[in-house]
Amino acid sequence: MTKPGTIYGVGLGPGDPELISLKAARLIGSATHIAYFRKAGRRGQARQLADGLLPAHAVELPMDYPVTTEIALDDDAYAATLKVFYEQCVEQLLQHAVHGDDVVVLCEGDPFLYGSFMHLHRRLIGRVAVEVVPGITGMSGCWTASGTPITYGDDVLHVVPATLDEAQLCQAMQGADALVVMKLGRNLPKVRRALQTVGLAERAVYVEHGTMAQQQVIKLTDKRDDNAPYFSMILVHGQGRRP
Amino acid sequence: MTKPGTIYGVGLGPGDPELISLKAARLIGSATHIAYFRKAGRRGQARQLADGLLPAHAVELPMDYPVTTEIALDDDAYAATLKVFYEQCVEQLLQHAVHGDDVVVLCEGDPFLYGSFMHLHRRLIGRVAVEVVPGITGMSGCWTASGTPITYGDDVLHVVPATLDEAQLCQAMQGADALVVMKLGRNLPKVRRALQTVGLAERAVYVEHGTMAQQQVIKLTDKRDDNAPYFSMILVHGQGRRP
Repeated sequence: MTKPGTIYGVGLGPGDPELISLKAARLIGSATHIAYFRKAGRRGQARQLADGLLPAHAVELPMDYPVTTEIALDDDAYAATLKVFYEQCVEQLLQHAVHGDDVVVLCEGDPFLYGSFMHLHRRLIGRVAVEVVPGITGMSGCWTASGTPITYGDDVLHVVPATLDEAQLCQAMQGADALVVMKLGRNLPKVRRALQTVGLAERAVYVEHGTMAQQQVIKLTDKRDDNAPYFSMILVHGQGRRP
Repeated sequence: MTKPGTIYGVGLGPGDPELISLKAARLIGSATHIAYFRKAGRRGQARQLADGLLPAHAVELPMDYPVTTEIALDDDAYAATLKVFYEQCVEQLLQHAVHGDDVVVLCEGDPFLYGSFMHLHRRLIGRVAVEVVPGITGMSGCWTASGTPITYGDDVLHVVPATLDEAQLCQAMQGADALVVMKLGRNLPKVRRALQTVGLAERAVYVEHGTMAQQQVIKLTDKRDDNAPYFSMILVHGQGRRP
Protein backbone atom coordinates (compact mmCIF):
# COMPACT_ATOMS: atom_id res chain seq x y z
CA MET A 1 0.00 0.00 0.00
CA THR A 2 1.25 3.49 -0.88
CA LYS A 3 2.10 5.68 2.10
CA PRO A 4 -0.27 8.67 1.90
CA GLY A 5 1.23 12.13 1.32
CA THR A 6 1.03 15.23 3.50
CA ILE A 7 -0.88 18.43 2.74
CA TYR A 8 1.18 21.50 3.69
CA GLY A 9 -0.51 24.87 4.24
CA VAL A 10 2.38 27.25 3.74
CA GLY A 11 2.29 30.96 4.64
CA LEU A 12 4.02 33.18 2.09
CA GLY A 13 4.07 36.40 4.06
CA PRO A 14 2.88 39.91 3.14
CA GLY A 15 4.05 40.25 -0.48
CA ASP A 16 7.81 40.78 -0.68
CA PRO A 17 9.10 37.39 -1.93
CA GLU A 18 12.14 37.76 0.33
CA LEU A 19 9.83 37.71 3.38
CA ILE A 20 9.06 34.03 2.80
CA SER A 21 10.47 31.81 5.57
CA LEU A 22 13.35 29.39 5.07
CA LYS A 23 10.95 26.53 5.79
CA ALA A 24 8.36 27.68 3.26
CA ALA A 25 11.12 28.20 0.68
CA ARG A 26 12.42 24.67 1.31
CA LEU A 27 8.96 23.10 0.97
CA ILE A 28 8.11 25.06 -2.20
CA GLY A 29 11.56 24.44 -3.67
CA SER A 30 11.17 20.67 -3.38
CA ALA A 31 7.44 20.50 -4.20
CA THR A 32 6.12 18.00 -6.73
CA HIS A 33 2.51 19.27 -6.41
CA ILE A 34 1.51 22.83 -5.65
CA ALA A 35 -2.01 24.20 -5.10
CA TYR A 36 -3.21 27.79 -4.75
CA PHE A 37 -6.37 29.85 -4.72
CA ARG A 38 -6.84 32.49 -7.38
CA LYS A 39 -9.49 34.69 -8.89
CA ALA A 40 -10.64 32.97 -12.11
CA GLY A 41 -8.77 34.38 -15.09
CA ARG A 42 -5.91 35.74 -12.98
CA ARG A 43 -2.48 34.26 -12.33
CA GLY A 44 -2.94 34.61 -8.58
CA GLN A 45 -0.86 36.59 -6.08
CA ALA A 46 0.14 33.48 -4.11
CA ARG A 47 1.40 31.69 -7.23
CA GLN A 48 3.31 34.78 -8.28
CA LEU A 49 5.07 34.99 -4.92
CA ALA A 50 6.38 31.44 -5.35
CA ASP A 51 7.75 32.16 -8.83
CA GLY A 52 11.45 32.16 -8.06
CA LEU A 53 11.24 29.06 -5.84
CA LEU A 54 9.03 26.53 -7.60
CA PRO A 55 10.66 23.68 -9.60
CA ALA A 56 9.77 23.83 -13.31
CA HIS A 57 8.31 20.31 -13.35
CA ALA A 58 5.95 20.76 -10.34
CA VAL A 59 2.31 19.84 -11.06
CA GLU A 60 0.13 22.93 -10.53
CA LEU A 61 -3.34 22.67 -9.04
CA PRO A 62 -5.00 26.09 -9.26
CA MET A 63 -8.22 26.50 -7.26
CA ASP A 64 -10.35 29.15 -8.98
CA TYR A 65 -12.80 30.95 -6.66
CA PRO A 66 -16.30 30.54 -8.11
CA VAL A 67 -17.30 33.92 -6.60
CA THR A 68 -15.41 36.88 -5.23
CA THR A 69 -17.26 40.14 -4.69
CA GLU A 70 -20.24 39.59 -7.00
CA ILE A 71 -22.49 38.25 -4.22
CA ALA A 72 -23.05 40.05 -0.90
CA LEU A 73 -21.34 38.34 2.03
CA ASP A 74 -24.56 37.78 3.99
CA ASP A 75 -26.13 36.02 1.05
CA ASP A 76 -26.89 32.35 1.70
CA ALA A 77 -25.98 31.60 -1.92
CA TYR A 78 -22.46 32.85 -1.25
CA ALA A 79 -21.90 30.39 1.61
CA ALA A 80 -23.50 27.53 -0.31
CA THR A 81 -21.37 28.16 -3.40
CA LEU A 82 -18.16 28.37 -1.38
CA LYS A 83 -19.06 25.21 0.56
CA VAL A 84 -19.30 23.17 -2.65
CA PHE A 85 -16.10 24.78 -3.95
CA TYR A 86 -14.08 24.01 -0.80
CA GLU A 87 -15.35 20.43 -0.80
CA GLN A 88 -14.23 19.97 -4.41
CA CYS A 89 -10.79 21.42 -3.56
CA VAL A 90 -10.47 19.02 -0.63
CA GLU A 91 -11.38 16.00 -2.80
CA GLN A 92 -8.73 17.01 -5.34
CA LEU A 93 -6.05 17.39 -2.63
CA LEU A 94 -7.03 14.08 -1.02
CA GLN A 95 -6.76 12.25 -4.34
CA HIS A 96 -3.15 13.32 -4.70
CA ALA A 97 -2.34 12.53 -1.06
CA VAL A 98 -3.88 9.04 -1.37
CA HIS A 99 -1.53 8.33 -4.27
CA GLY A 100 1.42 9.18 -2.02
CA ASP A 101 2.09 12.72 -3.19
CA ASP A 102 2.72 15.65 -0.87
CA VAL A 103 0.88 18.83 -1.88
CA VAL A 104 2.05 22.31 -0.92
CA VAL A 105 -0.87 24.75 -0.65
CA LEU A 106 0.35 28.34 -1.05
CA CYS A 107 -1.28 30.82 1.38
CA GLU A 108 -0.84 34.59 1.36
CA GLY A 109 0.14 35.99 4.76
CA ASP A 110 -0.36 33.51 7.63
CA PRO A 111 -2.65 30.51 7.00
CA PHE A 112 -4.39 30.68 10.40
CA LEU A 113 -5.24 34.42 10.46
CA TYR A 114 -8.38 34.68 8.30
CA GLY A 115 -7.48 33.32 4.82
CA SER A 116 -9.06 30.55 2.77
CA PHE A 117 -6.80 27.63 3.66
CA MET A 118 -8.54 27.15 7.01
CA HIS A 119 -11.69 26.10 5.17
CA LEU A 120 -9.70 23.26 3.60
CA HIS A 121 -7.83 22.57 6.83
CA ARG A 122 -10.89 21.75 8.93
CA ARG A 123 -12.16 19.38 6.22
CA LEU A 124 -8.76 17.64 5.83
CA ILE A 125 -7.98 17.12 9.53
CA GLY A 126 -8.41 13.47 10.51
CA ARG A 127 -8.43 12.31 6.87
CA VAL A 128 -4.80 13.01 5.94
CA ALA A 129 -1.60 14.39 7.51
CA VAL A 130 -1.72 18.19 7.45
CA GLU A 131 1.07 20.55 8.44
CA VAL A 132 0.75 24.33 8.67
CA VAL A 133 3.73 26.67 8.28
CA PRO A 134 3.06 30.15 9.70
CA GLY A 135 3.93 33.23 7.67
CA ILE A 136 4.54 36.91 8.27
CA THR A 137 1.05 38.40 8.40
CA GLY A 138 -0.16 41.04 5.96
CA MET A 139 -0.72 43.32 8.95
CA SER A 140 2.96 43.00 10.03
CA GLY A 141 3.87 43.95 6.48
CA CYS A 142 1.61 47.01 6.65
CA TRP A 143 2.77 48.31 10.03
CA THR A 144 6.40 47.79 8.99
CA ALA A 145 5.64 49.79 5.83
CA SER A 146 4.14 52.55 7.99
CA GLY A 147 7.52 53.01 9.72
CA THR A 148 5.95 53.04 13.19
CA PRO A 149 5.41 50.25 15.76
CA ILE A 150 1.77 49.20 16.08
CA THR A 151 1.86 48.54 19.87
CA TYR A 152 3.95 49.73 22.80
CA GLY A 153 4.04 48.38 26.37
CA ASP A 154 0.49 47.72 27.58
CA ASP A 155 -1.38 48.67 24.39
CA VAL A 156 -4.41 46.53 23.53
CA LEU A 157 -4.62 45.78 19.79
CA HIS A 158 -7.92 45.11 17.99
CA VAL A 159 -7.88 43.40 14.60
CA VAL A 160 -11.18 44.14 12.87
CA PRO A 161 -12.51 42.86 9.51
CA ALA A 162 -14.02 45.70 7.47
CA THR A 163 -16.78 43.30 6.37
CA LEU A 164 -18.71 44.00 9.60
CA ASP A 165 -21.60 46.45 9.38
CA GLU A 166 -21.07 50.05 10.47
CA ALA A 167 -22.52 49.66 13.99
CA GLN A 168 -20.46 46.50 14.58
CA LEU A 169 -17.34 48.29 13.32
CA CYS A 170 -17.85 51.14 15.81
CA GLN A 171 -18.41 48.59 18.57
CA ALA A 172 -15.25 46.63 17.59
CA MET A 173 -13.11 49.81 17.59
CA GLN A 174 -14.15 50.79 21.14
CA GLY A 175 -11.48 50.29 23.78
CA ALA A 176 -8.65 49.72 21.29
CA ASP A 177 -5.31 51.41 21.97
CA ALA A 178 -4.12 50.21 18.57
CA LEU A 179 -6.20 49.11 15.62
CA VAL A 180 -5.83 47.15 12.38
CA VAL A 181 -8.77 47.13 9.97
CA MET A 182 -8.41 44.36 7.38
CA LYS A 183 -10.29 43.36 4.21
CA LEU A 184 -10.92 46.96 3.15
CA GLY A 185 -11.82 46.87 -0.56
CA ARG A 186 -15.21 48.44 -1.17
CA ASN A 187 -15.80 48.67 2.61
CA LEU A 188 -13.58 51.76 2.86
CA PRO A 189 -16.34 54.45 2.99
CA LYS A 190 -18.09 52.53 5.82
CA VAL A 191 -14.80 52.20 7.73
CA ARG A 192 -14.14 55.95 7.32
CA ARG A 193 -17.54 56.73 8.86
CA ALA A 194 -16.94 54.34 11.77
CA LEU A 195 -13.50 55.86 12.47
CA GLN A 196 -15.11 59.32 12.47
CA THR A 197 -17.80 58.15 14.89
CA VAL A 198 -15.31 56.71 17.41
CA GLY A 199 -12.89 59.64 17.03
CA LEU A 200 -9.98 57.75 15.43
CA ALA A 201 -10.13 59.15 11.87
CA GLU A 202 -7.33 61.71 12.45
CA ARG A 203 -4.87 59.03 13.64
CA ALA A 204 -5.70 56.51 10.88
CA VAL A 205 -3.10 55.51 8.29
CA TYR A 206 -3.98 53.81 5.01
CA VAL A 207 -1.53 51.17 3.68
CA GLU A 208 -1.76 49.52 0.27
CA HIS A 209 0.57 46.74 -1.02
CA GLY A 210 2.71 46.83 2.16
CA THR A 211 6.29 45.52 1.54
CA MET A 212 5.73 45.37 -2.23
CA ALA A 213 7.25 47.58 -4.96
CA GLN A 214 4.03 49.56 -5.38
CA GLN A 215 3.66 50.12 -1.60
CA GLN A 216 1.64 53.21 -0.59
CA VAL A 217 1.33 54.70 2.91
CA ILE A 218 -0.76 57.84 3.53
CA LYS A 219 -2.80 59.42 6.29
CA LEU A 220 -6.41 58.36 5.73
CA THR A 221 -7.49 62.01 5.82
CA ASP A 222 -5.15 62.61 2.84
CA LYS A 223 -6.69 59.81 0.78
CA ARG A 224 -9.11 61.56 -1.57
CA ASP A 225 -10.68 58.56 -3.34
CA ASP A 226 -12.36 55.43 -2.03
CA ASN A 227 -10.47 52.96 -4.23
CA ALA A 228 -8.85 50.28 -2.06
CA PRO A 229 -7.70 46.74 -2.87
CA TYR A 230 -9.19 43.99 -0.68
CA PHE A 231 -5.82 43.42 1.01
CA SER A 232 -5.19 47.09 1.85
CA MET A 233 -5.48 48.01 5.54
CA ILE A 234 -6.06 50.87 7.92
CA LEU A 235 -3.83 51.20 10.99
CA VAL A 236 -4.19 53.26 14.14
CA HIS A 237 -0.90 53.08 16.03
CA GLY A 238 -0.78 52.61 19.81
CA GLN A 239 0.64 55.35 21.99
CA GLY A 240 1.57 53.31 25.08
CA ARG A 241 4.38 53.30 27.60
CA ARG A 242 7.74 54.35 26.11
CA PRO A 243 10.65 54.39 28.56
CA MET B 1 34.00 61.28 4.69
CA THR B 2 32.84 57.74 5.52
CA LYS B 3 29.34 56.88 4.34
CA PRO B 4 27.35 56.09 7.51
CA GLY B 5 26.04 52.54 7.98
CA THR B 6 22.45 51.36 8.36
CA ILE B 7 20.85 49.91 11.50
CA TYR B 8 18.65 46.91 10.65
CA GLY B 9 15.97 45.76 13.09
CA VAL B 10 15.44 42.18 11.97
CA GLY B 11 12.53 39.98 13.09
CA LEU B 12 13.55 36.36 13.80
CA GLY B 13 10.09 34.86 14.12
CA PRO B 14 8.57 32.72 16.89
CA GLY B 15 11.42 30.36 17.78
CA ASP B 16 11.92 27.70 15.10
CA PRO B 17 15.11 28.83 13.31
CA GLU B 18 13.62 27.66 10.00
CA LEU B 19 10.84 30.27 10.40
CA ILE B 20 13.33 33.09 9.81
CA SER B 21 12.68 34.95 6.52
CA LEU B 22 14.98 34.75 3.52
CA LYS B 23 15.70 38.47 3.94
CA ALA B 24 16.57 38.16 7.64
CA ALA B 25 18.79 35.16 6.85
CA ARG B 26 20.58 37.13 4.13
CA LEU B 27 21.19 40.14 6.41
CA ILE B 28 22.39 37.99 9.32
CA GLY B 29 24.51 35.82 7.02
CA SER B 30 26.42 38.82 5.71
CA ALA B 31 26.55 40.81 8.97
CA THR B 32 29.78 42.34 10.20
CA HIS B 33 28.17 43.69 13.41
CA ILE B 34 25.31 42.07 15.26
CA ALA B 35 23.47 43.40 18.34
CA TYR B 36 20.87 41.70 20.55
CA PHE B 37 19.11 42.13 23.85
CA ARG B 38 19.58 39.48 26.52
CA LYS B 39 19.05 38.89 30.19
CA ALA B 40 22.41 39.50 31.90
CA GLY B 41 24.26 36.23 32.38
CA ARG B 42 22.26 34.41 29.66
CA ARG B 43 23.23 33.69 26.07
CA GLY B 44 19.98 35.23 24.83
CA GLN B 45 17.18 33.59 22.82
CA ALA B 46 17.61 35.99 19.87
CA ARG B 47 21.34 35.28 19.60
CA GLN B 48 20.69 31.55 19.82
CA LEU B 49 18.19 31.70 16.95
CA ALA B 50 20.84 33.27 14.70
CA ASP B 51 23.41 30.57 15.52
CA GLY B 52 23.44 28.70 12.23
CA LEU B 53 23.45 31.88 10.13
CA LEU B 54 25.97 34.27 11.69
CA PRO B 55 29.50 34.51 10.20
CA ALA B 56 32.20 33.47 12.69
CA HIS B 57 34.01 36.81 12.45
CA ALA B 58 30.99 39.07 13.12
CA VAL B 59 31.47 41.57 15.95
CA GLU B 60 28.88 40.87 18.67
CA LEU B 61 27.25 43.69 20.61
CA PRO B 62 25.15 42.16 23.39
CA MET B 63 22.78 44.57 25.17
CA ASP B 64 22.23 43.27 28.71
CA TYR B 65 18.92 44.35 30.28
CA PRO B 66 19.72 46.11 33.58
CA VAL B 67 16.37 44.94 35.01
CA THR B 68 13.84 42.28 34.04
CA THR B 69 11.22 41.26 36.54
CA GLU B 70 12.88 42.48 39.77
CA ILE B 71 11.07 45.85 39.73
CA ALA B 72 7.31 46.24 39.34
CA LEU B 73 6.29 47.61 35.95
CA ASP B 74 4.52 50.66 37.36
CA ASP B 75 7.62 51.65 39.29
CA ASP B 76 9.10 54.96 38.11
CA ALA B 77 12.56 53.54 38.80
CA TYR B 78 11.90 50.84 36.16
CA ALA B 79 11.17 53.38 33.44
CA ALA B 80 14.09 55.59 34.44
CA THR B 81 16.55 52.67 34.45
CA LEU B 82 15.35 51.44 31.05
CA LYS B 83 15.51 54.94 29.60
CA VAL B 84 19.21 55.25 30.47
CA PHE B 85 19.85 51.73 29.16
CA TYR B 86 18.14 52.32 25.80
CA GLU B 87 20.02 55.60 25.38
CA GLN B 88 23.34 53.84 25.99
CA CYS B 89 22.39 51.13 23.45
CA VAL B 90 21.55 53.79 20.88
CA GLU B 91 24.88 55.60 21.38
CA GLN B 92 26.76 52.32 20.89
CA LEU B 93 24.84 51.54 17.67
CA LEU B 94 25.34 55.10 16.36
CA GLN B 95 29.08 54.92 16.95
CA HIS B 96 29.34 51.88 14.71
CA ALA B 97 27.07 53.41 12.06
CA VAL B 98 29.11 56.65 12.02
CA HIS B 99 32.21 54.61 11.22
CA GLY B 100 30.43 53.18 8.19
CA ASP B 101 29.40 49.83 9.63
CA ASP B 102 25.95 48.32 9.23
CA VAL B 103 24.57 46.76 12.42
CA VAL B 104 21.96 44.00 12.42
CA VAL B 105 19.82 44.11 15.58
CA LEU B 106 18.24 40.70 16.23
CA CYS B 107 14.60 40.87 17.38
CA GLU B 108 12.46 37.94 18.55
CA GLY B 109 9.11 37.74 16.75
CA ASP B 110 8.20 40.90 14.82
CA PRO B 111 10.09 44.11 15.73
CA PHE B 112 7.00 46.37 15.59
CA LEU B 113 4.62 44.26 17.73
CA TYR B 114 5.64 45.05 21.33
CA GLY B 115 9.34 44.10 21.67
CA SER B 116 12.32 46.19 22.78
CA PHE B 117 13.70 47.27 19.42
CA MET B 118 11.04 49.95 19.06
CA HIS B 119 12.58 51.82 21.99
CA LEU B 120 15.84 52.04 20.01
CA HIS B 121 14.00 52.70 16.75
CA ARG B 122 12.31 55.91 17.86
CA ARG B 123 15.64 57.25 19.18
CA LEU B 124 17.52 56.32 15.98
CA ILE B 125 15.04 57.70 13.45
CA GLY B 126 16.33 60.93 11.88
CA ARG B 127 19.89 60.31 13.09
CA VAL B 128 20.82 57.30 10.94
CA ALA B 129 19.33 55.08 8.24
CA VAL B 130 17.11 52.45 9.89
CA GLU B 131 15.43 49.53 8.15
CA VAL B 132 12.97 47.15 9.81
CA VAL B 133 12.41 43.60 8.57
CA PRO B 134 9.12 42.11 9.82
CA GLY B 135 9.09 38.62 11.30
CA ILE B 136 6.54 35.89 11.98
CA THR B 137 4.98 36.95 15.29
CA GLY B 138 5.16 34.83 18.43
CA MET B 139 1.36 34.72 18.37
CA SER B 140 1.32 33.24 14.85
CA GLY B 141 3.72 30.61 16.16
CA CYS B 142 1.41 29.85 19.08
CA TRP B 143 -1.83 29.59 17.10
CA THR B 144 -0.09 27.42 14.51
CA ALA B 145 1.11 25.19 17.38
CA SER B 146 -2.49 24.98 18.64
CA GLY B 147 -3.55 23.35 15.35
CA THR B 148 -6.58 25.64 14.99
CA PRO B 149 -7.07 28.94 13.12
CA ILE B 150 -7.33 31.95 15.44
CA THR B 151 -9.90 33.87 13.35
CA TYR B 152 -12.57 32.98 10.79
CA GLY B 153 -14.59 35.28 8.55
CA ASP B 154 -15.77 38.31 10.53
CA ASP B 155 -14.11 37.47 13.87
CA VAL B 156 -12.69 40.41 15.83
CA LEU B 157 -9.33 39.59 17.43
CA HIS B 158 -8.09 41.29 20.60
CA VAL B 159 -4.38 41.12 21.47
CA VAL B 160 -4.02 41.85 25.17
CA PRO B 161 -0.82 42.20 27.28
CA ALA B 162 -1.13 40.28 30.56
CA THR B 163 0.68 43.14 32.28
CA LEU B 164 -2.62 45.07 32.58
CA ASP B 165 -4.37 44.95 35.96
CA GLU B 166 -7.28 42.54 36.46
CA ALA B 167 -10.07 45.05 35.82
CA GLN B 168 -8.33 46.31 32.68
CA LEU B 169 -7.85 42.71 31.50
CA CYS B 170 -11.58 42.00 31.87
CA GLN B 171 -12.35 45.21 30.01
CA ALA B 172 -9.90 44.35 27.20
CA MET B 173 -11.40 40.86 26.77
CA GLN B 174 -14.96 42.18 26.32
CA GLY B 175 -16.30 42.01 22.79
CA ALA B 176 -13.51 39.78 21.48
CA ASP B 177 -14.48 36.90 19.20
CA ALA B 178 -10.89 35.68 19.36
CA LEU B 179 -8.25 36.50 21.93
CA VAL B 180 -4.47 36.39 22.36
CA VAL B 181 -3.06 37.17 25.81
CA MET B 182 0.69 37.88 25.62
CA LYS B 183 3.46 38.45 28.18
CA LEU B 184 2.07 35.85 30.60
CA GLY B 185 4.92 34.99 33.01
CA ARG B 186 3.88 35.61 36.60
CA ASN B 187 0.65 37.29 35.39
CA LEU B 188 -0.97 33.90 34.75
CA PRO B 189 -3.13 33.68 37.95
CA LYS B 190 -4.52 37.17 37.26
CA VAL B 191 -5.29 36.24 33.63
CA ARG B 192 -7.06 33.05 34.79
CA ARG B 193 -9.31 35.11 37.07
CA ALA B 194 -10.09 37.59 34.29
CA LEU B 195 -10.97 34.78 31.84
CA GLN B 196 -13.29 33.28 34.49
CA THR B 197 -14.97 36.65 35.04
CA VAL B 198 -15.67 37.21 31.33
CA GLY B 199 -16.68 33.57 30.74
CA LEU B 200 -13.82 32.56 28.44
CA ALA B 201 -11.85 30.23 30.76
CA GLU B 202 -13.33 27.03 29.29
CA ARG B 203 -12.29 27.95 25.73
CA ALA B 204 -8.77 29.11 26.67
CA VAL B 205 -5.69 27.25 25.41
CA TYR B 206 -2.24 27.66 26.97
CA VAL B 207 0.78 27.58 24.59
CA GLU B 208 4.40 27.53 25.70
CA HIS B 209 7.44 27.62 23.35
CA GLY B 210 5.24 27.55 20.22
CA THR B 211 7.10 26.13 17.14
CA MET B 212 10.09 25.05 19.28
CA ALA B 213 11.20 21.51 20.24
CA GLN B 214 9.83 21.87 23.79
CA GLN B 215 6.45 23.18 22.52
CA GLN B 216 3.50 22.57 24.87
CA VAL B 217 -0.20 23.10 24.07
CA ILE B 218 -2.89 22.35 26.68
CA LYS B 219 -6.34 23.53 27.65
CA LEU B 220 -5.90 26.16 30.34
CA THR B 221 -8.29 24.26 32.62
CA ASP B 222 -5.88 21.28 32.39
CA LYS B 223 -2.88 23.34 33.45
CA ARG B 224 -2.43 22.58 37.16
CA ASP B 225 0.44 24.93 38.03
CA ASP B 226 0.95 28.66 37.51
CA ASN B 227 4.47 28.43 36.05
CA ALA B 228 4.61 30.22 32.72
CA PRO B 229 7.51 31.72 30.76
CA TYR B 230 7.13 35.41 29.85
CA PHE B 231 6.71 34.49 26.17
CA SER B 232 4.00 31.87 26.72
CA MET B 233 0.49 32.85 25.60
CA ILE B 234 -3.18 32.13 26.09
CA LEU B 235 -5.41 31.81 23.04
CA VAL B 236 -9.18 31.81 22.67
CA HIS B 237 -10.02 30.76 19.11
CA GLY B 238 -12.70 32.52 17.09
CA GLN B 239 -15.82 30.64 16.02
CA GLY B 240 -16.87 32.76 13.05
CA ARG B 241 -18.40 32.12 9.65
CA ARG B 242 -17.29 28.81 8.09
CA PRO B 243 -18.74 28.06 4.66
